Amino acid sequence: MTNDSMITVRQTARPAGFPTPDLFSFTEEPLPAPRPGTALVENLQLSVDPYHREAMDTDELWTLGAPMEGRALGRVLDSRDPALRPGDLVLHRKGWRTHALVAPDEARRVPDLGPGVPLAAHLSLLGGTGLSAYVGLTRIARLQPGEDLFVSAAAGGVGTAAGRLARLLGAGRLVGSAGSARKVAYLTEEVGFDAAFDYHDGPVAELLAKAAPDGLDAALEGVGGEHLEAAIGALREYGRIAWVGAVGQYHALSTPPPAPRNLFDLVGKSIRLEGFLVRNHTDALEELYDLAVPRLRDGSLPLDVTVTEGFGHVVDAFLGMLRGENLGKALVAV
Amino acid sequence: MTNDSMITVRQTARPAGFPTPDLFSFTEEPLPAPRPGTALVENLQLSVDPYHREAMDTDELWTLGAPMEGRALGRVLDSRDPALRPGDLVLHRKGWRTHALVAPDEARRVPDLGPGVPLAAHLSLLGGTGLSAYVGLTRIARLQPGEDLFVSAAAGGVGTAAGRLARLLGAGRLVGSAGSARKVAYLTEEVGFDAAFDYHDGPVAELLAKAAPDGLDAALEGVGGEHLEAAIGALREYGRIAWVGAVGQYHALSTPPPAPRNLFDLVGKSIRLEGFLVRNHTDALEELYDLAVPRLRDGSLPLDVTVTEGFGHVVDAFLGMLRGENLGKALVAV
Repeated sequence: MTNDSMITVRQTARPAGFPTPDLFSFTEEPLPAPRPGTALVENLQLSVDPYHREAMDTDELWTLGAPMEGRALGRVLDSRDPALRPGDLVLHRKGWRTHALVAPDEARRVPDLGPGVPLAAHLSLLGGTGLSAYVGLTRIARLQPGEDLFVSAAAGGVGTAAGRLARLLGAGRLVGSAGSARKVAYLTEEVGFDAAFDYHDGPVAELLAKAAPDGLDAALEGVGGEHLEAAIGALREYGRIAWVGAVGQYHALSTPPPAPRNLFDLVGKSIRLEGFLVRNHTDALEELYDLAVPRLRDGSLPLDVTVTEGFGHVVDAFLGMLRGENLGKALVAV
Repeated sequence: MTNDSMITVRQTARPAGFPTPDLFSFTEEPLPAPRPGTALVENLQLSVDPYHREAMDTDELWTLGAPMEGRALGRVLDSRDPALRPGDLVLHRKGWRTHALVAPDEARRVPDLGPGVPLAAHLSLLGGTGLSAYVGLTRIARLQPGEDLFVSAAAGGVGTAAGRLARLLGAGRLVGSAGSARKVAYLTEEVGFDAAFDYHDGPVAELLAKAAPDGLDAALEGVGGEHLEAAIGALREYGRIAWVGAVGQYHALSTPPPAPRNLFDLVGKSIRLEGFLVRNHTDALEELYDLAVPRLRDGSLPLDVTVTEGFGHVVDAFLGMLRGENLGKALVAV
């Protein structure tokens, strides 16, 4: 890569099961000049996300052979639109390349929050990931101080943000599930969970019941299937489940896993199960900033991110995230 | 039966599948005298309910050989407690017999609402049945004027009440499912539904999509399984499902039906699925009275009840209700 060229990743074929690196190609071309009404952005950090696995299966989000959508943080190099000025930090969705041309309505300017706040915050705790956790806890589950919470897939980007934010919101007992002993240790030793378990160690319902013997008031659910069934089983009367996604299903959306056998317990226990999409709640971002930015600045709120260095490793970072190798949000530093 | 004896129904054996009359026995004994702190009530009307089928399977609600729980409306004949006076109309849960001894905390006095309001209203639209519909619509689904609603098992007690009340609450398109052509006709010709279908006529999802081609905002769900899946499929973004029970499951609670294959659509459509028990919402009864009583009095709100005459037919009325022979709430006039 030279300073005057743009490198782009493209998907070349559909995966059969777990994706492989040969499904992607890298192409290099001269750096484009901004057209009127656009700006040239140099990407600094890219987000690789669970939903990208779903995007690989159809043309809906990722068209074969075309540059790939992805959330990115960049800095404006050159602009032919007055709304975007050279030096501006912007978030946009034309990721998976070193540079991008964006129009003002495709980019959101973000403040440089100073030396105490790493740029990675914009794509993790202060981005869609953290906002998903914040909205799930406050607007959907409506977590109250002292209430006990279960977070599934807790060592990922949304899960770690949920753990940190739930602590700030005054949660009671905080229980998480994760996919390895290393992650379980990270949750209890670093993120502030009271208890965590590796969901490979037995039936999730049994592991959760052991970790939360007195029950729970709310859950942030991101897995589905057995995890959702366990959450329903562990919730007390008037429990709430904020359903933020189902990473466990992205490899096989055409054959969803068995739905919870105890679904009817929603009636007996007056439980509310509610799904949401973070894109419908961007107006909560200011609240999240109010809660998190001062604590990021004073160092009391660490970021949970796994940053892969080098644009050339973006596919590796993505596949590693799918294998669950990341702690916290998976990012690529270009 | 003579005026000075009490007849009681008892369950003598557990059913295997659909219950039969030989599982019940009738016994006659002298009318008991009230002990201090109790009153003797002559039952006037009894309720036979879907949940009674579930009660047949375990000792939890109905103990083999013991008098059977059931909602009843009666009049106090004699009392040895100042809180209950001869002539008082009371609702209690010691049904399935001609008379009962009740303590004041086991009975709720109800007003005689005058000649325009039949006694049957207390066990149907103004009782737990109507209150289930009212709470489901107003507190759980939070139905707004103009919104389109689906009611499953719509020709039963809760379903007909939901149809009548939704009309009063200003619902938009009102769609119901029922188990026979006669019931479908009753819903559209009598109760005020805009469309209804017989769920035996094909996959419920297809029938519902045809009856509500533009989608729905809310559903009052009382069946589960295929009906719940159809409701999820038909709901628009931000749809709400108030889950009031699952009559389709009462014969086989140990083997619940397949849960909705489209459960994950709760996330994509931001749908809220919430269960509730009417016993937690008795404080809504006053609101329901305010809405319904004036309209019962002026005749603009008819009752949907199927009344079986004669205490000796209580088992027949129960089994007929389970077979779906009733239109509206199934009652027995003692």
